[in-house]
Amino acid sequence: MENNKYICKAFNASKKIYIEGKQHKIKVGMRQVKLTDTVIEGKRISNGSINIYDTSGFFTDSNVEIDIKKGLPRLRESWHKDDDNFDTLSSFTSKYSNEQLEDKSLKEFRFPIINMPKRAKKGKEITQMALAKKGIITPEMEYVAIRENLSNDYSKTYITPEFVREEVANGRAVIPCNPNHPEAEPMIIGNKFLVKINTNIGNSALGSDIEKEVEKSVWSSRWGGDTLMDLSTGKHIHQTREWIIRNCPVPMGSVPIYQALEKVNGIAENLTWDMYKDTLIEQCEQGVDYFTIHAGLLKKHIPMVDKRLTGIVSRGGSIMAKWMKENNQENFLYTHFDDICDILSQYDVAVSIGDGLRPGSIHDANDDAQFGELETMGMLCKKAWQHNVQVLIEGPGHVPLHKIKANMEKEITECHNAPFYTLGPLTTDIAPGYDHITSAIGAAMIGWLGTAMLCYVTPKEHLGLPNKEDVRNGIMAYKIAAHAADIAKNHPSAMERDNALSKARFEFRWLDQFNLSIDPERAMEYYGVEKIKETPFCTMCGPNFCAMRISREVSNKGKITE
Amino acid sequence: MENNKYICKAFNASKKIYIEGKQHKIKVGMRQVKLTDTVIEGKRISNGSINIYDTSGFFTDSNVEIDIKKGLPRLRESWHKDDDNFDTLSSFTSKYSNEQLEDKSLKEFRFPIINMPKRAKKGKEITQMALAKKGIITPEMEYVAIRENLSNDYSKTYITPEFVREEVANGRAVIPCNPNHPEAEPMIIGNKFLVKINTNIGNSALGSDIEKEVEKSVWSSRWGGDTLMDLSTGKHIHQTREWIIRNCPVPMGSVPIYQALEKVNGIAENLTWDMYKDTLIEQCEQGVDYFTIHAGLLKKHIPMVDKRLTGIVSRGGSIMAKWMKENNQENFLYTHFDDICDILSQYDVAVSIGDGLRPGSIHDANDDAQFGELETMGMLCKKAWQHNVQVLIEGPGHVPLHKIKANMEKEITECHNAPFYTLGPLTTDIAPGYDHITSAIGAAMIGWLGTAMLCYVTPKEHLGLPNKEDVRNGIMAYKIAAHAADIAKNHPSAMERDNALSKARFEFRWLDQFNLSIDPERAMEYYGVEKIKETPFCTMCGPNFCAMRISREVSNKGKITE
Repeated sequence: MENNKYICKAFNASKKIYIEGKQHKIKVGMRQVKLTDTVIEGKRISNGSINIYDTSGFFTDSNVEIDIKKGLPRLRESWHKDDDNFDTLSSFTSKYSNEQLEDKSLKEFRFPIINMPKRAKKGKEITQMALAKKGIITPEMEYVAIRENLSNDYSKTYITPEFVREEVANGRAVIPCNPNHPEAEPMIIGNKFLVKINTNIGNSALGSDIEKEVEKSVWSSRWGGDTLMDLSTGKHIHQTREWIIRNCPVPMGSVPIYQALEKVNGIAENLTWDMYKDTLIEQCEQGVDYFTIHAGLLKKHIPMVDKRLTGIVSRGGSIMAKWMKENNQENFLYTHFDDICDILSQYDVAVSIGDGLRPGSIHDANDDAQFGELETMGMLCKKAWQHNVQVLIEGPGHVPLHKIKANMEKEITECHNAPFYTLGPLTTDIAPGYDHITSAIGAAMIGWLGTAMLCYVTPKEHLGLPNKEDVRNGIMAYKIAAHAADIAKNHPSAMERDNALSKARFEFRWLDQFNLSIDPERAMEYYGVEKIKETPFCTMCGPNFCAMRISREVSNKGKITE
Repeated sequence: MENNKYICKAFNASKKIYIEGKQHKIKVGMRQVKLTDTVIEGKRISNGSINIYDTSGFFTDSNVEIDIKKGLPRLRESWHKDDDNFDTLSSFTSKYSNEQLEDKSLKEFRFPIINMPKRAKKGKEITQMALAKKGIITPEMEYVAIRENLSNDYSKTYITPEFVREEVANGRAVIPCNPNHPEAEPMIIGNKFLVKINTNIGNSALGSDIEKEVEKSVWSSRWGGDTLMDLSTGKHIHQTREWIIRNCPVPMGSVPIYQALEKVNGIAENLTWDMYKDTLIEQCEQGVDYFTIHAGLLKKHIPMVDKRLTGIVSRGGSIMAKWMKENNQENFLYTHFDDICDILSQYDVAVSIGDGLRPGSIHDANDDAQFGELETMGMLCKKAWQHNVQVLIEGPGHVPLHKIKANMEKEITECHNAPFYTLGPLTTDIAPGYDHITSAIGAAMIGWLGTAMLCYVTPKEHLGLPNKEDVRNGIMAYKIAAHAADIAKNHPSAMERDNALSKARFEFRWLDQFNLSIDPERAMEYYGVEKIKETPFCTMCGPNFCAMRISREVSNKGKITE
């Protein structure tokens, strides 16, 4: 594999800075954008710099050399070095992992370095939730407090390390941080915090390969994805995942049933608890930070689907429905939910309870099937919390604007304030090719109403696998939706960047505008790279019709010069 | 000029159909999409066809040959042939129009055919509002009733010709239809009707030319723009406009102050009422259907702008502010508002009262300046109605999600239910290059809350003049926002298309999915044109992981075959 294409250079006029913890020996990375001066009638006024929440990790630190074959620095490993909570195992627990390791034909696909897995010592409760309940502020909790505030000064914010601890203890927020993925920077998912976005990547039987998936994952973090789900269903799932995790600065999620289904050659009815369990452990020990598990879909819900226009559109949901029907048994993810939580609690892997019955069309939104499953999900949520497993609740799907609020309200009631994690929702069905937009509309609204994480949708949704440019467009649509929600929710650090950009815009500091924008390269490309000098107008209006220029003449603010 | 590139062929599997009026001799054009059959286990079930609201006019009627140099057929001319409401003038009233006609150097830019203008006979009240108040259901009113319902059967709808008449009489809806633009198909703007979208085109001093503008305007209608504003500020404004209007199947708007400013070489303080008046008449006689007029911005509002981050961002607003300041006089558009209405009422040109103080950043949203101007706009609205001039009220701009509702409510209260016509609003400032998305989010929300028309924003907003592809992306984002709002508002004809597309999706009728989508060409391109055969899965999930395929197996609906 070539290295250079994965190394994303830092953004223009930006440098990586690190803010130190006060309680723990941690350094929280963020991006600092240096602004140019305002020059009014020859007088120079500094605009200082702006800190920006940054998901790109060490990839944009010019002082760190990244070798994709070695993986990212193992940031969090040192935080727990003297910790007596974990054992480092001498072999993998999963039978499948060991088989993959021993299979010589896989050598060329394998990640070059093997790290032995960590697992909770027997009898130790090691999840962030368990520790939070005991009143412990972990390094991860302090990290996210600083990260959310873009500062370690808590004087103007409600988001303190202690507040983070409380939210995690109560299940209202989740910090996905499997100790086997120490490359990931801690982040928090909860409705009092910045709205996060997840990106999906992964190959299917019909396309893509390991190299392309790693490339997409690296760029996903660089562009602003807060978590990354690997939904691979094609060949070499195990190896693809390893490459991605070792180079992934954000928490990673997966849907273990996809790999389990591959192991039984796509025949859903042949799935068993034992091989699913082995798959869970395999992925826990690789470092997946959260699992989507479709445990809320029960036999009794399946007939409710008959009234639908588009049946079951969740892959995991359809697999489990098929399994239940063919075996005439209750969903084994439901009957084994305690066993699942036992495993997850040993690796602090969060469970994202999947909505197998999310609506796949406007017609099916908010129906009995969907809300019936949601009630079961709420029950499972409480069960997971008893094991101190952190919980996310997955949500729709396709929902028209006027039915979005009911989704959020019902989730809060049934699922006891566990963070909601929705796919969109898409607000109309008629726009294949533009579903990043149909869904960004729903996502912004549900984010404002309280959804903690938004699963992105790319322009290729319903049509095919996204390429790198589709990933970019999906991320940008969702960064916008999340940020619009943050502003509406009055997150303490949301507005600074908007105000700085708007001030730059009114003062014709074009470079500052680009550097502060969510996709500087795109903005510059559209403006016309050759024109990047500080001109007092753009081609949209031309010189005579620039409202901002005329407005400045009318005001008493003085003429912008340089 | 080449002809062929303007002729947009009909959409795949679609034909133009015409539904006849019951009260008037009119034929309402729309697009009919023929669907393929569902085949379940060999049994063939017809899906019939779906009618779709169509803004492309005769351009997509394969039976009509369009010559761009002759313009579109003059559809509405015959409706008023025996009408004793209008005089056909023997010469243009505007001095400038006559000068342009006599200037031999302009020959090559001129539209080849000259149509003499119509004007109300002295003492005749000819606007749709005047007629509606008298209880007359005009052909235009019946036309829009059929168009909104996609049918002339009113048994399942509240939108009847009489309902249209009432809404127009009360000022709650506007039918822009200057008799000098008989090429335009009637459409209605009001909050009980489908949410409409406007597209802006126009050259600036720095780019574009007549040919490109005509091309953009034709494609704008083909892609779904409901009205079109020509915001040209560069050379040959008069000629560009004529070419566009003669080939424009949708109502056209303009901002006359732009052309007036060009006439005084860009020096705002040199603007006079007389030359502005001549410009109004020039444009009325060319066939502009509505004018944006910034009459609500008064001297007293200007100091309110000082607290802002981004001052005045409306071009018209900044021009008038500059004029007031330099001349130390009240806004002449305000002091001459009765004179303006006198002119407009003779050509049934609607006034779109411009919001010169719309906020240009999230920081400035809902401030005293913005809402102060809105109050004046409400007063002017009543004044226009006294002249039976139809009124739209323009709105913001940049507004965060949580402040959108207050805008709609205040508009309703202050402006007496006149249709609101907003630019976005943009819900964050940080995404130049993606402002079609930041604003589609706000547009969907404000459309749902009652805004009647949404002015599109392209990805080039804040950066440069849009090209044809930008126009397409802007339109699609706004078609989505408007349609999402229509569904949420329960418009009687909104959901049929979503349901038909979703049914096609669940039955793997790929071609029907594409044909029913807002941009069939884009959807097909993303799916992969070479694969367009009825395969039971797409590359997104591959065959084993297709939820819809598995879901169908679980259900008792039978296997899709063919």
